[in-house]
Amino acid sequence: MVVDDIPEPAPGEGQVLVQTRACGICGSDLHTVQHADEMVRLSEEAAESAPEGVSMFVFDPARDVVMGHEFAAEVLELGPGAAGVTPGQTIVCMPIVADERGLHAVGYSNDYPGGYGERMVLSAGLFLQVPNGLDARRAALTEPMAVGVHAVNRSGIAPGQAAVVIGTGPIGLAVIAALRVKGIEPIVAADYSARRRDLARTMGAHEVVDPQEEPAIAAWRRVDGRRPLVIFEAVGVPGVIDRAMRDAPRQAEIMVVGVCMEPDQVQPFLGISKELTVRFALGYDPMEFASTLQAIAEGAIDVDPLITGAVGIDGVPDAFADLANPEAHAKIVVEP
Amino acid sequence: MVVDDIPEPAPGEGQVLVQTRACGICGSDLHTVQHADEMVRLSEEAAESAPEGVSMFVFDPARDVVMGHEFAAEVLELGPGAAGVTPGQTIVCMPIVADERGLHAVGYSNDYPGGYGERMVLSAGLFLQVPNGLDARRAALTEPMAVGVHAVNRSGIAPGQAAVVIGTGPIGLAVIAALRVKGIEPIVAADYSARRRDLARTMGAHEVVDPQEEPAIAAWRRVDGRRPLVIFEAVGVPGVIDRAMRDAPRQAEIMVVGVCMEPDQVQPFLGISKELTVRFALGYDPMEFASTLQAIAEGAIDVDPLITGAVGIDGVPDAFADLANPEAHAKIVVEP
Repeated sequence: MVVDDIPEPAPGEGQVLVQTRACGICGSDLHTVQHADEMVRLSEEAAESAPEGVSMFVFDPARDVVMGHEFAAEVLELGPGAAGVTPGQTIVCMPIVADERGLHAVGYSNDYPGGYGERMVLSAGLFLQVPNGLDARRAALTEPMAVGVHAVNRSGIAPGQAAVVIGTGPIGLAVIAALRVKGIEPIVAADYSARRRDLARTMGAHEVVDPQEEPAIAAWRRVDGRRPLVIFEAVGVPGVIDRAMRDAPRQAEIMVVGVCMEPDQVQPFLGISKELTVRFALGYDPMEFASTLQAIAEGAIDVDPLITGAVGIDGVPDAFADLANPEAHAKIVVEP
Repeated sequence: MVVDDIPEPAPGEGQVLVQTRACGICGSDLHTVQHADEMVRLSEEAAESAPEGVSMFVFDPARDVVMGHEFAAEVLELGPGAAGVTPGQTIVCMPIVADERGLHAVGYSNDYPGGYGERMVLSAGLFLQVPNGLDARRAALTEPMAVGVHAVNRSGIAPGQAAVVIGTGPIGLAVIAALRVKGIEPIVAADYSARRRDLARTMGAHEVVDPQEEPAIAAWRRVDGRRPLVIFEAVGVPGVIDRAMRDAPRQAEIMVVGVCMEPDQVQPFLGISKELTVRFALGYDPMEFASTLQAIAEGAIDVDPLITGAVGIDGVPDAFADLANPEAHAKIVVEP
């Protein structure tokens, strides 16, 4: 990871040049630094078997990538044919940019620099103006919070059901916030880190446990044990899905939001004998992205507790190292 | 596996003594002979983590078990308090029996002999009289066909969506029949056995392939490739779920009906990047069981092609061996 100068990107047809105002550092980027080759290999395999849709994480790890996909930015200059925005506006948008070759994932592209740099080129059509005078730092959290909103929507959980959230890093915390907005009760969360357990309470979990003292699903049995259960797996390391399948009650759903890069082992017979559902979620749709921005701007989701640090571009390498310690940080925002 | 005499079972409170008229040999029983200890161990683990509901497959493999849970029977004698049935009636029922200790799985119990023997004790309350003069041999197929009906119902598949059925043993064939009743098109099926591919066509598959020549999902892409897809995994050996996850299109659902007794490896990242759902199904509910009997009796599901042999009790051990050859048999019915 280096801090360096690259050529200023130039907006093409329908594109807009922006100045990054704030960009959150995402756990996926920490993963990418460690597992880029495997991530790209699997993404290419996924893209080949499912050519429809956008393929994230397909880039050449040997070439430069400016990461950063959780951003708020200021409009600088409109490219040819771009419309609907004015220089000076603060915007957020889904980290996708279109050109004549197709769609590209901003922050996981060799061609489109992401938000850990000063300038980005984005597609005007996806812009959302930041409302209510919301500052860029909070607005930048639209993206990770939308991941939580999408996972909760995709699970189909509804009031009357219960939730267990395993792992309360930024994604687990986003899931808790989205569950709270949906009126789910109880929300039972588990994390080994005391700091993150505190954050889980702050974001709205009704019961929070250290899995070394009490497994998450045992805690749910203690405080509820009867409502239909959705278990959100927000850890993303091998063994967590298997553990959830072993502990789950009958008919439970396990919603996998944690991005596990390694092969994992499960015991299908346990899935069968308890009729479990294992569902995987990634990203969000444009409606979810927009409604998340609105929820943050209106105060329905308070992202302040999640922002535990801010750095300039020079501070990004150290911030990556600091984020490995869950006692120290949840979300560090880069402000170029 | 031995053929032997055991004491005549006696009906207790609310129970009924019946004479087995026909009992299908189920793939789960072939599994049980090979993997009884592991199956019981995992079932006990499942029961412990999910004490609500009936625990199948919890018995002592060191003691005698009379297997057989796909049966039609004739009522012989009502125990105290049993009502609603008359001696001489032909009935089918879910293979569950109640007593003061709780619910027991008929055919996987040390206490309640199953349908590979002459006499069973069952609970009167679960009986369904066989309608339309349907013979016992066909009526006995209510149970395995209900497994297919349940898997299809639980998948939530609806007309306008497509289905791939991987493996066309009795359960895969039951799934095809249930998909056909639901009006699903296309149904694409795959099996290594030519005989079973023929049966898949007979039961209603629109396209049938040998996976050595063309993978099942590639065949779906060829004949359809655009409808939302549900993939039914009806093989139950390690590696099939992983293969399905690798080949699946985005947003596909993999419905696992095959009962895999061994640990299995998957690549969660593929599930995430394509937002797959892996759902597990077991058994059926009383409504599904009753509607399946009705569908067979009215001819909506024709089970004749599935019945490829019939034996007496003495023929059961050989029938178990014969069923290992998919070219020879689909379903062998025991007629004690």
